Amino acid sequence: MTLWGGRFSEPSDDDLRALNDSLPYDKRLYREDIRGSIVYALALVKAGVITKAEAQQIEQGLEQVLAEFEADTFALKPEDEDIHTAVERRLTEIIGETGGKLHTGRSRNDQIATDMRLWVRREMVGINNRLLPLQEALVEQAAAHVEDVMPGYTHMQPAQPVTAGHWLMSYFWMLQRDRTRVDVSIIHAEELPLGSGALAGTPLDIDRMVLGFNSELQFEGYTQNSLDAVSDRDFVADSLYALSMIGIHLSRLAEDLIIFSNPLFGFVTLDDRYSTGSSLMPQKRNPDPMELMRGKTGRLIGNLTGFLTTLKGLPTGYNKDLQEDKEALFDSVDTMNKLLPVITAIIRTLRLNPDRMRAALDENMLATDLADYLVKKGMPFRQAHHVSGRAVRLAGERGVKLSQLPLADLRELSDLFDSDTSAVFDFDASVARRRAIGGTAPDAVREQIEEARRLLE
Amino acid sequence: MTLWGGRFSEPSDDDLRALNDSLPYDKRLYREDIRGSIVYALALVKAGVITKAEAQQIEQGLEQVLAEFEADTFALKPEDEDIHTAVERRLTEIIGETGGKLHTGRSRNDQIATDMRLWVRREMVGINNRLLPLQEALVEQAAAHVEDVMPGYTHMQPAQPVTAGHWLMSYFWMLQRDRTRVDVSIIHAEELPLGSGALAGTPLDIDRMVLGFNSELQFEGYTQNSLDAVSDRDFVADSLYALSMIGIHLSRLAEDLIIFSNPLFGFVTLDDRYSTGSSLMPQKRNPDPMELMRGKTGRLIGNLTGFLTTLKGLPTGYNKDLQEDKEALFDSVDTMNKLLPVITAIIRTLRLNPDRMRAALDENMLATDLADYLVKKGMPFRQAHHVSGRAVRLAGERGVKLSQLPLADLRELSDLFDSDTSAVFDFDASVARRRAIGGTAPDAVREQIEEARRLLE
Amino acid sequence: MTLWGGRFSEPSDDDLRALNDSLPYDKRLYREDIRGSIVYALALVKAGVITKAEAQQIEQGLEQVLAEFEADTFALKPEDEDIHTAVERRLTEIIGETGGKLHTGRSRNDQIATDMRLWVRREMVGINNRLLPLQEALVEQAAAHVEDVMPGYTHMQPAQPVTAGHWLMSYFWMLQRDRTRVDVSIIHAEELPLGSGALAGTPLDIDRMVLGFNSELQFEGYTQNSLDAVSDRDFVADSLYALSMIGIHLSRLAEDLIIFSNPLFGFVTLDDRYSTGSSLMPQKRNPDPMELMRGKTGRLIGNLTGFLTTLKGLPTGYNKDLQEDKEALFDSVDTMNKLLPVITAIIRTLRLNPDRMRAALDENMLATDLADYLVKKGMPFRQAHHVSGRAVRLAGERGVKLSQLPLADLRELSDLFDSDTSAVFDFDASVARRRAIGGTAPDAVREQIEEARRLLE
Amino acid sequence: MTLWGGRFSEPSDDDLRALNDSLPYDKRLYREDIRGSIVYALALVKAGVITKAEAQQIEQGLEQVLAEFEADTFALKPEDEDIHTAVERRLTEIIGETGGKLHTGRSRNDQIATDMRLWVRREMVGINNRLLPLQEALVEQAAAHVEDVMPGYTHMQPAQPVTAGHWLMSYFWMLQRDRTRVDVSIIHAEELPLGSGALAGTPLDIDRMVLGFNSELQFEGYTQNSLDAVSDRDFVADSLYALSMIGIHLSRLAEDLIIFSNPLFGFVTLDDRYSTGSSLMPQKRNPDPMELMRGKTGRLIGNLTGFLTTLKGLPTGYNKDLQEDKEALFDSVDTMNKLLPVITAIIRTLRLNPDRMRAALDENMLATDLADYLVKKGMPFRQAHHVSGRAVRLAGERGVKLSQLPLADLRELSDLFDSDTSAVFDFDASVARRRAIGGTAPDAVREQIEEARRLLE
Repeated sequence: MTLWGGRFSEPSDDDLRALNDSLPYDKRLYREDIRGSIVYALALVKAGVITKAEAQQIEQGLEQVLAEFEADTFALKPEDEDIHTAVERRLTEIIGETGGKLHTGRSRNDQIATDMRLWVRREMVGINNRLLPLQEALVEQAAAHVEDVMPGYTHMQPAQPVTAGHWLMSYFWMLQRDRTRVDVSIIHAEELPLGSGALAGTPLDIDRMVLGFNSELQFEGYTQNSLDAVSDRDFVADSLYALSMIGIHLSRLAEDLIIFSNPLFGFVTLDDRYSTGSSLMPQKRNPDPMELMRGKTGRLIGNLTGFLTTLKGLPTGYNKDLQEDKEALFDSVDTMNKLLPVITAIIRTLRLNPDRMRAALDENMLATDLADYLVKKGMPFRQAHHVSGRAVRLAGERGVKLSQLPLADLRELSDLFDSDTSAVFDFDASVARRRAIGGTAPDAVREQIEEARRLLE
Repeated sequence: MTLWGGRFSEPSDDDLRALNDSLPYDKRLYREDIRGSIVYALALVKAGVITKAEAQQIEQGLEQVLAEFEADTFALKPEDEDIHTAVERRLTEIIGETGGKLHTGRSRNDQIATDMRLWVRREMVGINNRLLPLQEALVEQAAAHVEDVMPGYTHMQPAQPVTAGHWLMSYFWMLQRDRTRVDVSIIHAEELPLGSGALAGTPLDIDRMVLGFNSELQFEGYTQNSLDAVSDRDFVADSLYALSMIGIHLSRLAEDLIIFSNPLFGFVTLDDRYSTGSSLMPQKRNPDPMELMRGKTGRLIGNLTGFLTTLKGLPTGYNKDLQEDKEALFDSVDTMNKLLPVITAIIRTLRLNPDRMRAALDENMLATDLADYLVKKGMPFRQAHHVSGRAVRLAGERGVKLSQLPLADLRELSDLFDSDTSAVFDFDASVARRRAIGGTAPDAVREQIEEARRLLE
Repeated sequence: MTLWGGRFSEPSDDDLRALNDSLPYDKRLYREDIRGSIVYALALVKAGVITKAEAQQIEQGLEQVLAEFEADTFALKPEDEDIHTAVERRLTEIIGETGGKLHTGRSRNDQIATDMRLWVRREMVGINNRLLPLQEALVEQAAAHVEDVMPGYTHMQPAQPVTAGHWLMSYFWMLQRDRTRVDVSIIHAEELPLGSGALAGTPLDIDRMVLGFNSELQFEGYTQNSLDAVSDRDFVADSLYALSMIGIHLSRLAEDLIIFSNPLFGFVTLDDRYSTGSSLMPQKRNPDPMELMRGKTGRLIGNLTGFLTTLKGLPTGYNKDLQEDKEALFDSVDTMNKLLPVITAIIRTLRLNPDRMRAALDENMLATDLADYLVKKGMPFRQAHHVSGRAVRLAGERGVKLSQLPLADLRELSDLFDSDTSAVFDFDASVARRRAIGGTAPDAVREQIEEARRLLE
Repeated sequence: MTLWGGRFSEPSDDDLRALNDSLPYDKRLYREDIRGSIVYALALVKAGVITKAEAQQIEQGLEQVLAEFEADTFALKPEDEDIHTAVERRLTEIIGETGGKLHTGRSRNDQIATDMRLWVRREMVGINNRLLPLQEALVEQAAAHVEDVMPGYTHMQPAQPVTAGHWLMSYFWMLQRDRTRVDVSIIHAEELPLGSGALAGTPLDIDRMVLGFNSELQFEGYTQNSLDAVSDRDFVADSLYALSMIGIHLSRLAEDLIIFSNPLFGFVTLDDRYSTGSSLMPQKRNPDPMELMRGKTGRLIGNLTGFLTTLKGLPTGYNKDLQEDKEALFDSVDTMNKLLPVITAIIRTLRLNPDRMRAALDENMLATDLADYLVKKGMPFRQAHHVSGRAVRLAGERGVKLSQLPLADLRELSDLFDSDTSAVFDFDASVARRRAIGGTAPDAVREQIEEARRLLE
């Protein structure tokens, strides 16, 4: 028997049950569901609906149900549509018809909204906690490579020399912004919806403030409108968005590591433990986890898009479409929870190869410095850019390095070139000059790292 | 031991394994994987790589593995990364080192591509088959309501009277178009990739035509480029797209049924077996399956979007990102397979309420017919539209029906109005007039139904 | 001539230019671009790169360029690739080669990042400002209908009576949460990237703190890593997400108004000025703007999804893919700016029809109250729910209202029913009971409105 | 005055008009709209609604309107809501009130559906035509590099040697599949909706078959259900999907070219005409068009996603949401039309650098061949794979090439190694062995090219 069959003359079709029932995936909310019910029972006492003794009976019964779930001995029955009905059914088996009093003035609509918010809060706090060691790993690797110079790329073409520490730290800041997004999802989950009933609020004399703040649920607020409260899944969308953005940032890091571990680059080597082989090609060492990171970002974005699409155009009040919040969210959280420890370990164990990085430097990357040299001697930058570009072209046509162009030839391009021009061709000096806040100079990167460490505390 | 560990000095990290291993979901490909391997063993004989006796040994071993999967007695081991390695590992346990010969010249890259194509072909044919009874149910209900007149809506505002059969048939044609989309996914899956190796093709003397056509795999073609073959998942995208479009069409039907079963409409009543109740509100009869249909369309679109995003910008050859093809596809197919039987049964058991439909007709819906009346008397349509609009406004201001406007008043708007004007206000005559192909007249709908039945055969 | 042609031996192809050039859409950034350049010129003086006189010349030149844009007299030239090159080209025409000094140490990469952030800040503040009058309109309408009772729906089926003010206020709170999302996009735009150069930072002695805080740009922070700064478009994604969520909330309101303005509901009437007609059907009054609101939410979600997809997997540093940030963002902001005034006016001028709302109430919606009645008399809720459900079914079978069931019949279902049962069938009393925080009772809604007004100040 | 104002007492609000009016973008449909109207006028003659003389008058008037659009002298008026009303308004100005007869029995709903289908047919045929030269360019470049050996990658790690022609041809086949998708969008657009009226069909005696087949519109079928016909935008979704898939394939090619033109690879050089520079860094040669190709694929996917989202859950009949079909489709088609000529020219003018490709080959890529060598001598592949893997590891530990391992050391791994082992280390022989259909051997690639040329004819 379902909990709601009184007015129906025929039971539900089996195919419908298979489609409709959410227990296979919402049973993971059992802790939240039981915790919320225990608190609710206390509120029913204050409201004069049940006695203290009944509440104790309910609490003990629920603790037993919880124990059964924790011990994986909870026996599902066919009529258990969802976690709420499963728990209430079992509670009533254990304590008898007093169990049937628990749902007074409450609906599965405000109950699931409460469960989901508790779950989001816990799990998204967990995501933030799992970001920390990754950010620390980035900082530690950056600190170890503050002075190593590598090619910096724009458009995947050599642009200017940068320090490896600077490159690694760029990912630190992306993740730092993601923490704000995770926080927004938590803030929006921090309002208690319990007491909203199915849509219209509760007719019981329930103090929702007490229910939210002073209970062990410890919400930081309460919803202001019952109709909104039962159909609001903004905090789910916020979570899916935050997880997508983390995914996007990590997919960029993945792309770098995939390219940089190609032997023609050889800038980094992934640890054996985080590389995989081929069933056919014996020599392969593949950066599989990085590719999964990149590939699964598609899935994270898909979960977000799918859920936003589900929300679009829903009419007022709770609609069953909202049941789609769970699998999308569970999948994105699970995906991220699997990815983060791996990527953290990869960064921690990553071997950077400063020799290969330096070997990949190319004097053309100093063409901007060459232009800056002319600017210092008084040439407007736009003209200096043009002269430097022509020098690059000339060197290319001759098949020589920029520094190998004879001064005489340079002077044909501009007579501001002089014997001190050769000093331009120094990669370390180039990076050292970029020491303004946020620049790639070792000194500036050290400041970045200091700031980052401060934030991590 | 993994199958590829020779060159590695350290085993894979456990977290990586949890992230990387696809067996938890790709084991459902066991039939396709084993079937493909049996055929491949025969090809290895022809290519002179193994003996007939070895092939028989392999086939028998594989049949045993298959039997174990079918009987659910296959014992997974930790080193089983995916369905391919699980099968090969078990095969080798059963028949000894000859099992290690099966993978000669083959890669998991062309193997999974083959498995997935076989799976898509089977499952998408299944989708087409499951669309049939739904289309039949629509046709049967339409045939039963060819003459029942209901309000036709545009912008959810009363527009013109239509027949209920016409309304139902509109969904038939949407699904009919979807069959073409399903077919495209099958056509693109119908090319055998086996024999492409990891990326470069096979060095063995394998006749890929024989492998594809003359084997029990019965492909209709073979891939023309090994690099493309191992990284092509177009047929997955095509499937996800086809399933999204089916979802979109059914979400529209769902929206209609949700609105039309609201008591203020009351046009349709869902069978008790396909309605659900509320844990709080005893009177509720909710169209949950229709809401799930509508809601899950978001998920289908999300799966498509996510996978397209995963594909975007992948470099040449197989990349691990492609492993993301499976869960998205499995989920969309499973979702549709759960939805279709329910929605088919709902249409079959749907009760249409012709009285409520007719009661909802409103004479303003005949304003176009009123304009047409004037056109027949020689007034240009644009002017007739304006006159009819003013009549509607006049009736509204007076709070009377359009037919209740005195002829004198109508004649102030146009002296073409005459005693025969009253004949306009006949809903049945209005629909009967629209008998050109595709029109809502019972006669035209009967032709539609005939054409539909012809197509269903 | 492009600004960067020195090293090239051949000019760009015309088709490439048509594809590549962003001026057709990024010219709307002219104000931001020029403002940023004026501030940058001052920084160049402090850094000793140009003289005060040169800076003044540059400023005057830029003011003239600005004036030309404002007066729409700026003449585009074929070599103007984007707003930056157009402005610099024109500046140099006006003030001569000193104009060529402005770009010293600056790249279009940090320049466009600065422009975009200034634009996002201004426009997203604008969005928040445009949300205000809409929220006010909701509050005013809610205040006017605090006591009007209407059917509350879940699953689009009658659930419990609610007050119209409560229904309207539910949208207030959704938009209130959206303000936080808009704020996040602004916060992330509030860091100055200027001084990041192309990727490696600036070699000039530029005080980026002064540049950000103490200039007329008035940023609230500065980016900490130049590589990140030039490729960070998080604030664009945040904006697109915030706009999607606003769209989703308004699409729900739109769905309600579309359904509620169908004549069978008739709960609301859109003003003539915000309804549209049909070219064929003279009687039509269509809620076009509501449908556009709902439809364009797809586009807002599409812009978000598309841009996230673009960002996914980009390698380090600036990549041209990022140019795709602009059209998506401009389109979403423009779309919302067109929608908000219309929907605000619609709410302001919306006519609610309390009589139609009340007429749609149905005693079955009091079945929960009937169960509550039994609970008060001591029956556990679960059992009371069942009894009430059977009463609903009995009334349905008899074709009578719930209140018309004879007491005797009710007492067969439960002997707790008594002569006071009839008091249950009072819609106003039902809503009045739900007076806990967030409930639908007029008193509770008045508190909601008070809180809302406090927030709006 | 709008065309539908008869029943309204107040004109539309200006903000609404700005939101609602589609003329700014749908005016590009003027040719389709006028063409459809001319044909419709002839049908009205046959139906006895207008005289031949009136039809001629209408045709001449419409030809003049067309001429005005072509000459860009058409003067828009404020009341022109969309292309249909603009054309009808102007027609009536030119020929007087006979113009007002054209819309008899027709609605903007079936009119826009007709216009859009005509447009899609023309433009998607155009896309297919623009794919041809790109495919030809791929084939020509492939033919020129059939024998050039380059590293083949999986997971972006060196896998096996392939021929450059093989690599290029892999993209040919992707695009070949896309042609089928484009065809599906055309097939679904090939059904005439005219004669469907607003939703219910036409009351006029119109032969829709004649209208579709025997007119200059030359449709290949006609819609079977008027309700479906006016709200069907499947052909738009199909087009957006086909364009997304083309984008995805080209984004993969773009990714390859971006990576392969990085100097550490240097496999390809983009022509100067298709490279761009930097405003700051004089040496830069950026593959901007490839990055735009990759980036804009996000936008193509976004347009698809957004439109699917818009379609989801729409109720029966035409809803204004469908107006969103146009901008998404126009944008995706325009985007592709801008991209295709550029990418075609890039492939045509691409310089492949066979020396750099060969220099990047690495003997580890022959590890599979080494295993195959052992297989030929009788070792099961799985064991051979392991032995070869250990050889790779040994060479790596010693810092020597695989071919430099002394035979004695190899024989410690397996005594099947012999003096003929050295013959394995030949890249050309390796690719030549893979000559089965679809393999990378020059001979197999020549067959591919032949097949491709046959298909292109």
